Amino acid sequence: MLEDLKARVCEANLELKRSGLVILTWGNVSGIDRESGLVAIKPSGVSYADMRPEQMVVVDLEGRVVEGDLRPSSDKLTHLVLYREFEGIGGVAHTHSIYATAWAQACRALPCYGTTHADNFRGQIPVTRKLTKKQLQGQYEYETGLAIVQAMEGREPLHMPATLVASHGPFTWGPSPEAAVENSIVLEQVAQMALVSERLATVLGDRFLKPISRELLDKHFLRKHGKDAYYGQE
Amino acid sequence: MLEDLKARVCEANLELKRSGLVILTWGNVSGIDRESGLVAIKPSGVSYADMRPEQMVVVDLEGRVVEGDLRPSSDKLTHLVLYREFEGIGGVAHTHSIYATAWAQACRALPCYGTTHADNFRGQIPVTRKLTKKQLQGQYEYETGLAIVQAMEGREPLHMPATLVASHGPFTWGPSPEAAVENSIVLEQVAQMALVSERLATVLGDRFLKPISRELLDKHFLRKHGKDAYYGQE
Amino acid sequence: MLEDLKARVCEANLELKRSGLVILTWGNVSGIDRESGLVAIKPSGVSYADMRPEQMVVVDLEGRVVEGDLRPSSDKLTHLVLYREFEGIGGVAHTHSIYATAWAQACRALPCYGTTHADNFRGQIPVTRKLTKKQLQGQYEYETGLAIVQAMEGREPLHMPATLVASHGPFTWGPSPEAAVENSIVLEQVAQMALVSERLATVLGDRFLKPISRELLDKHFLRKHGKDAYYGQE
Amino acid sequence: MLEDLKARVCEANLELKRSGLVILTWGNVSGIDRESGLVAIKPSGVSYADMRPEQMVVVDLEGRVVEGDLRPSSDKLTHLVLYREFEGIGGVAHTHSIYATAWAQACRALPCYGTTHADNFRGQIPVTRKLTKKQLQGQYEYETGLAIVQAMEGREPLHMPATLVASHGPFTWGPSPEAAVENSIVLEQVAQMALVSERLATVLGDRFLKPISRELLDKHFLRKHGKDAYYGQE
Repeated sequence: MLEDLKARVCEANLELKRSGLVILTWGNVSGIDRESGLVAIKPSGVSYADMRPEQMVVVDLEGRVVEGDLRPSSDKLTHLVLYREFEGIGGVAHTHSIYATAWAQACRALPCYGTTHADNFRGQIPVTRKLTKKQLQGQYEYETGLAIVQAMEGREPLHMPATLVASHGPFTWGPSPEAAVENSIVLEQVAQMALVSERLATVLGDRFLKPISRELLDKHFLRKHGKDAYYGQE
Repeated sequence: MLEDLKARVCEANLELKRSGLVILTWGNVSGIDRESGLVAIKPSGVSYADMRPEQMVVVDLEGRVVEGDLRPSSDKLTHLVLYREFEGIGGVAHTHSIYATAWAQACRALPCYGTTHADNFRGQIPVTRKLTKKQLQGQYEYETGLAIVQAMEGREPLHMPATLVASHGPFTWGPSPEAAVENSIVLEQVAQMALVSERLATVLGDRFLKPISRELLDKHFLRKHGKDAYYGQE
Repeated sequence: MLEDLKARVCEANLELKRSGLVILTWGNVSGIDRESGLVAIKPSGVSYADMRPEQMVVVDLEGRVVEGDLRPSSDKLTHLVLYREFEGIGGVAHTHSIYATAWAQACRALPCYGTTHADNFRGQIPVTRKLTKKQLQGQYEYETGLAIVQAMEGREPLHMPATLVASHGPFTWGPSPEAAVENSIVLEQVAQMALVSERLATVLGDRFLKPISRELLDKHFLRKHGKDAYYGQE
Repeated sequence: MLEDLKARVCEANLELKRSGLVILTWGNVSGIDRESGLVAIKPSGVSYADMRPEQMVVVDLEGRVVEGDLRPSSDKLTHLVLYREFEGIGGVAHTHSIYATAWAQACRALPCYGTTHADNFRGQIPVTRKLTKKQLQGQYEYETGLAIVQAMEGREPLHMPATLVASHGPFTWGPSPEAAVENSIVLEQVAQMALVSERLATVLGDRFLKPISRELLDKHFLRKHGKDAYYGQE
């Protein structure tokens, strides 16, 4: 079932690996078929070297395995919360890429310091609150999803397709699994650029570098997204 | 038409990708045929994986498409301003390479801290002023070109073949599309080296590292450029 | 003899190279056959380009060569101390990977700032004391092993499979040579992430970033290790 | 003539490229035949992609071209000063590798913070004084060689096979062209590690990290070099 979706989700996972965002068996990408409400997701702890579409696990939105011989990603419940809460999204990706994870570990939201950021993310990328002891010891991955939703409050998921989970790492999403992966790639770039920009600014005696203006942010985001976009081919 | 120029511009775009300066569909290179006043430029948002010379779009200096089925790069107008204002140049390149972009995001001109820099750039690489709200909401890419020209005031374009666009990223140029790409490559190297040199200098208690002397700068630039150059083969 | 172990140890050494953790002839991995008490280890100073299983040297726990034409790794005695003192381990790896070595050179234990760290290491990764002049001029590699054992005091070797040797670099271990190499790979990632996280935290005026909570640490470590683990396939 | 030396020098130049220490046409390696007093050196500004042994230029110790159709490296005179002054050396390499160059640009000698450094360099790697205006405008490359010799005063060239040229970049050497390249590779690694170690030490409130002890330095250097060395195969 869902052969096409499983093939795309498998390929999106492999793209995560090829892009250098994950090593070993880290990271996971899923995609949803909105008609059936079924999600295809990477199996847990499986080698990228011989990953195949038929290994992708199909689960429903409550997390029950509908098809597949392998155990789904241990982050499954986080993905499912996002699909339930963010209506327009079609794919979710999670990595431990170095710079994005370092911002998450520092428990800092990622300010928008330039147009590279603004091209994909319409403002500062939020960071979650820390989970309480009770949440950590309960349904941990489900609580992680809720913390993302809470951090995203008031934001349009397709305009801000990423959140940093405090002390953990980034989750990204998009209209498709491929777009979710692209957002992980861009996030890692802008996380590194922002670090360097802050370092360079401190030489000038600025403790904080100022984010770009609302106008420049909107200009770049809307150059690529929405009805008046003019980047790319139609 | 302009088959040779389109082939060289296509190859120069691919070199940008191979050099690690761009990811996804980012970046763009163009080249001009000064006789006809026509410019060949990368199409907007097209994959590098299967980029071919016949996809390059030919435009005139006012930006009208003269040949090509695809939409030209969204940064087209910036390129055209540079060709109109900088007479001696034959190619323009634009990237979001990490370190050069980080300097642009910090809105800092890049000081000349060593001979690697001096070999290609005769002094501090300028940064543009920020665009006004009105300029952002008008012909944005055209205004970006004007801001570069303004930042370059008093400088010889072939002696200073780069400018950092504030909050955005680098534009470079040169006598040919290949030289424009080479200058993007060197700029990224010296942007990283300068960051590290500043970090190392702060350990000594220096807040600012001093640029190299005018004499060393000229020695290295003129060893490679101009009538008395003795680097390379004739 | 021990053909299978030698093949695995050779492959584990090559994985160290492929992962970018070692250059030139640096680094070494060994594995033990607990039944016979024999250890297979990389020969000293041999090129990775043409490394073959039959070059691995077999030594006993006192360091006597039992099989092999080449001289064993100069770090042999350090490995042997670890096999004698840490009963459950099956493999040892040593690298000079850049970020882990930089922490060792700064003589700093590596705090646990996130779940990437917690997935493999149950707490702060210890650093050894510096060796005394007498120890340096005695059986140096043996003393290095003792310093690791001392730094690990009170810790369970399979819960903390790494120690930073002050002014030198990391040693890691695990139930197998492959696991020892995996721990070297993860250590290098978290050493870089921790550096960046500390840099980002200083912008907020925090001199020290706080490690993650005991609860989050245990949650992640036990998600992957022990009888209640649910990461990966059974 | 000197076919074997030219082949080795060509291969050593290509190794510089493969190791990521040089880009474009940067860098140069030479080797000397002590019997004839002739030096084979990379030609100036030639592409690495199709470099061949027969392109290497043979010069005598006064810099006269003895064989070869191409112009020798513009840094030729620097190499020749080193061959004349440092009797035991057989090869010289020069790069603009990022971290070593950044130390040179910061005009800082590179302290020995760990055993990776001590394995190849017996102490702090010196940095030259800046050249005077007169020296810059005279025989620049020859003066650069003299500045290296002056910075090396009191040191044994084969125990300290590197010097950082202030505002420029590193020169390394060794008993052979291959050893000179190896020293460039190690220098770049330890230059990056030292930067990171200093960053990590400042978190502890140390402005300067202390170099390792004389005893540890000698232990590691002599483990690999000299009559009592026991690293590698005989």
